[in-house]
Amino acid sequence: MKYNQVTIKDIARELGISPSTVSRALKDHPDISPETKKAVNELAEKLNYQPNIVALSLRQSKTNTIGVIIPELVHFFFSTVISGIEDVAYSAGYNVIITQSNESLQREKTDIKALFNSRVDGMLISVSRETNTFDHIEGILAKGVPMVFFDRVYENANSSKIIVDDLSGAKEATLHLIDQGCKRIAHLEGPPNLEITKQRLEGYLEALKDHNIPVNKNLIMACPLGTIEEGKKATEKLLAMAEPPDAIFATNDPAAMGAMQAIKEAGLKIPKDIAVVGFSNWFFSALLDPPLTSVDQPGFEMGQEAAKLLIRQIEMKTKNSDIDVQPETKVLKTRLVVRDSSLKKGKKK
Amino acid sequence: MKYNQVTIKDIARELGISPSTVSRALKDHPDISPETKKAVNELAEKLNYQPNIVALSLRQSKTNTIGVIIPELVHFFFSTVISGIEDVAYSAGYNVIITQSNESLQREKTDIKALFNSRVDGMLISVSRETNTFDHIEGILAKGVPMVFFDRVYENANSSKIIVDDLSGAKEATLHLIDQGCKRIAHLEGPPNLEITKQRLEGYLEALKDHNIPVNKNLIMACPLGTIEEGKKATEKLLAMAEPPDAIFATNDPAAMGAMQAIKEAGLKIPKDIAVVGFSNWFFSALLDPPLTSVDQPGFEMGQEAAKLLIRQIEMKTKNSDIDVQPETKVLKTRLVVRDSSLKKGKKK
Repeated sequence: MKYNQVTIKDIARELGISPSTVSRALKDHPDISPETKKAVNELAEKLNYQPNIVALSLRQSKTNTIGVIIPELVHFFFSTVISGIEDVAYSAGYNVIITQSNESLQREKTDIKALFNSRVDGMLISVSRETNTFDHIEGILAKGVPMVFFDRVYENANSSKIIVDDLSGAKEATLHLIDQGCKRIAHLEGPPNLEITKQRLEGYLEALKDHNIPVNKNLIMACPLGTIEEGKKATEKLLAMAEPPDAIFATNDPAAMGAMQAIKEAGLKIPKDIAVVGFSNWFFSALLDPPLTSVDQPGFEMGQEAAKLLIRQIEMKTKNSDIDVQPETKVLKTRLVVRDSSLKKGKKK
Repeated sequence: MKYNQVTIKDIARELGISPSTVSRALKDHPDISPETKKAVNELAEKLNYQPNIVALSLRQSKTNTIGVIIPELVHFFFSTVISGIEDVAYSAGYNVIITQSNESLQREKTDIKALFNSRVDGMLISVSRETNTFDHIEGILAKGVPMVFFDRVYENANSSKIIVDDLSGAKEATLHLIDQGCKRIAHLEGPPNLEITKQRLEGYLEALKDHNIPVNKNLIMACPLGTIEEGKKATEKLLAMAEPPDAIFATNDPAAMGAMQAIKEAGLKIPKDIAVVGFSNWFFSALLDPPLTSVDQPGFEMGQEAAKLLIRQIEMKTKNSDIDVQPETKVLKTRLVVRDSSLKKGKKK
């Protein structure tokens, strides 16, 4: 494509000064008078002058752009994380461009190449639920591109990561159900490749163990996509058991919502017959009937921390491209938001 | 940043062949044997060889990347549009990178520059609710960058656009409320800069006119941000009137949801006392209590059509950069999804 690019020469001709004066004015050179700088900058703005990007990138390869790969835009948690990323990035003078893998490994591979080819200064990545090989990530890491993982991380990477304490969050949720008098607590388990799925299961198991409640494997149902539909189907199976559960702790809010639909359709009451707790505290969870108890993840803070770590790395590498940045891991705390879907004892928060 | 870039020379050295053979093998040149091509491609893949992007862009400026600017990621409608864009773009061999303006004109200006600097082949834009000047868009259009607008469009641009028939959608929603026996229908109006706001108001007014219902300006309430909070506050004011409305048609689903909260908190029943209809058919609308009637916009189709139009423009311009592409406007139909929030007569869809 040929862009009708305004050049320094056009600005010089228009103002009747030399191109080198224009160039130095644009660079805020001390030899150029404030009046000339003002005139040059105003005309540059008016004509939408953009420095020739190709020539520029030969001189200085920094684009001041951060690339983000997230699994799904429609996921409320991830849009909150992006707001946090943007909050820090824009203040520090970086732009943010986003790609979504749509939970596909193949798409994730294409995205990472597209971001690399856009010459982003660094990447923030949360992997797809299909991601079980990491060559595409290793390849870009090997080129020295700063990268920070968040939430769904690449465990073996020698890179920084921001995670949420999923285990503690899941344990707190399960302990809350035990505290409400629930004895047969089911768990709707999430996508099997993800570390967060394992951590949430582990938290559930630890809570049961702490209270000497034996683990009943029939009460742990797989929801590999973690969707509303899966949560509903899994719950229908649980309700058909000879001894159905008296509580459900779901790996995420959509699955919990599916559980609520199945319970209501079976003519049972929430929380009286079955209490329900989700994970992630989606936008809609407070609006459900009854409002859904959920484990809140600090998405905005996660985005802020991830962007801060990445920008620090980018700026260290800008000063010294051979530097080895020490990887850091930051673990953020969750917070249980108790609502009516789990309050069997009727006490209000 | 210095990337540890694998070069054609590295591949040549490793395989004991000449760099020009490697180069031709990578380009699938007929002079090179299938065995050599296979070996070169496998090693290139293994070493994560990437053609030098700067050198490449001096030769051929096509990046096969489409840039998208949307107002808000968290907006369900826009995430549906993006899925439609990606559906068409990936099939056609294009990557999609996304930026969000966060409903800010300033951010939109930064985004458009960032996409331009990323050398995207074309842009798909839905403007922010603050956007009331268009110099930033004109500047990029003047450089010959193909651009297609969707949903919230730049009306005066000599560019293609995909819009939804907001007027008809709003009229159908209002006629449905009249059909349910509602006589005092209020309207929660959206962000004043947006054409869609005007069209939805116009549809509401046309429906009233068709049924000789006089317009009561006190029943039209401004919700300039179109949020849940604003919808709630506006509805509280409506309920405090001597003669409150018997129906509310909101400019979007969040405002409708705020209306529902206010109605419930006032101890009134939906739809018996006040019927409610929204616009956009958000993800959560079917899950509310009662489920919300809403005007469905074909977001996925809008994304597909916008991407198709843009790619056609890009490919025409690639063949002939001086071509003037004729602008096209495509109008998509809405569909009223009737749920319990508006069924006063109790009839089921």
